[in-house]
Amino acid sequence: MEETIPGFVPAQLSIASILAVYGSASALVIASIWILSSKYRYLGATDRLLMCWFAFSGLTHIILEGYFVFTPDFYKQKEICFLSEVCKEYHNGDSRYGARDPTVVIVEGITSVLAGPACLLAVYAIAKRKSYQYTLQLAVSLGQLYGDIVYFGQPILAGKEFSKGGLLYYWFYYIFMNGIWVVIPLPIVVRSWRKISQGLEAPSKKERKSKASFDRHKAA
Amino acid sequence: MEETIPGFVPAQLSIASILAVYGSASALVIASIWILSSKYRYLGATDRLLMCWFAFSGLTHIILEGYFVFTPDFYKQKEICFLSEVCKEYHNGDSRYGARDPTVVIVEGITSVLAGPACLLAVYAIAKRKSYQYTLQLAVSLGQLYGDIVYFGQPILAGKEFSKGGLLYYWFYYIFMNGIWVVIPLPIVVRSWRKISQGLEAPSKKERKSKASFDRHKAA
Repeated sequence: MEETIPGFVPAQLSIASILAVYGSASALVIASIWILSSKYRYLGATDRLLMCWFAFSGLTHIILEGYFVFTPDFYKQKEICFLSEVCKEYHNGDSRYGARDPTVVIVEGITSVLAGPACLLAVYAIAKRKSYQYTLQLAVSLGQLYGDIVYFGQPILAGKEFSKGGLLYYWFYYIFMNGIWVVIPLPIVVRSWRKISQGLEAPSKKERKSKASFDRHKAA
Repeated sequence: MEETIPGFVPAQLSIASILAVYGSASALVIASIWILSSKYRYLGATDRLLMCWFAFSGLTHIILEGYFVFTPDFYKQKEICFLSEVCKEYHNGDSRYGARDPTVVIVEGITSVLAGPACLLAVYAIAKRKSYQYTLQLAVSLGQLYGDIVYFGQPILAGKEFSKGGLLYYWFYYIFMNGIWVVIPLPIVVRSWRKISQGLEAPSKKERKSKASFDRHKAA
């Protein structure tokens, strides 16, 4: 809880303002990518939705989580800065943030420095149908899942509760906002895995078919 | 350090015995897989070495790390059990083990339960040239790297030293024995990534070539 952290300056913006700004900025990113991706006519709805997801995810990792990682004294700031306000508010859902729990910092460090830019690269890779698009989606999503297992697992094993509790702090901030990065990456891992396997199996089948057709034509 | 953990019973086997048993068991696994893999004549030396690595790695994850995860009171055991002796001895290189640091337990949990069996599946996948062999190698190796970043990063961020120090405890147990799972997975990630990209690029080239040959034949 924030009262136990020396020098903690509580958030000054209202919860509604913080959530409204983050929510509308996210909606703007998602809508922009959805519209912009329509110019790639060969992309299906799933690919376009994945582009929206990776753009939203990557920007959250880089901006929000990156700010947390590289601003060790965010909780002492007296001036209103939107990012420190978000971190202070989020701290009500998980007091490891203000306490700068080393495990949370290292997981957030990996997420902001490695997963963040990798997410944005995935947006480009999907749009351009790069050969590494599924490998990248798989790697990023596995990393997000690993991070969430450590994030949720550590307090359970420590037998400690870091949330103020209740619908907003525990269920919305802690469970829902982190749960998103479990529920979405999981099917992406399965899909990417399948796409890679299909792609690596396909050539031999296609080659056989092409070769058979070639042989038939030759014999005729 | 073990003296600060209530009920800690120090290892009774000599360091030489512990290292000799682990070392020779590992050598036996590696030699067996190297010999057995020779019957798959289509496998190159790199594939066979990777089979040795994943067999050694998987068994270490499942047996040693699995024992640590699922035996919370290993440090209290008075009877000589080889696995608890290893954990007690390793604890000199990293006292988070005896203290059952939640971060170490969760990372070791992921490693023993998910990465361990996945390593053994990779041995089979390489031998049988399964279409998912590189995807699996990539996933496992990324997981091992993620685990090591958290494992090495947490004490740095916490500003704490958990080793007894010195050549054996700090350099051999802590740095070298964990460093193996950084130095080897890293090139495996690069190789698997390239193999997947090549495999996914290749068909279109091959198809084009095959199609061109087919068209030339048709025109002739």
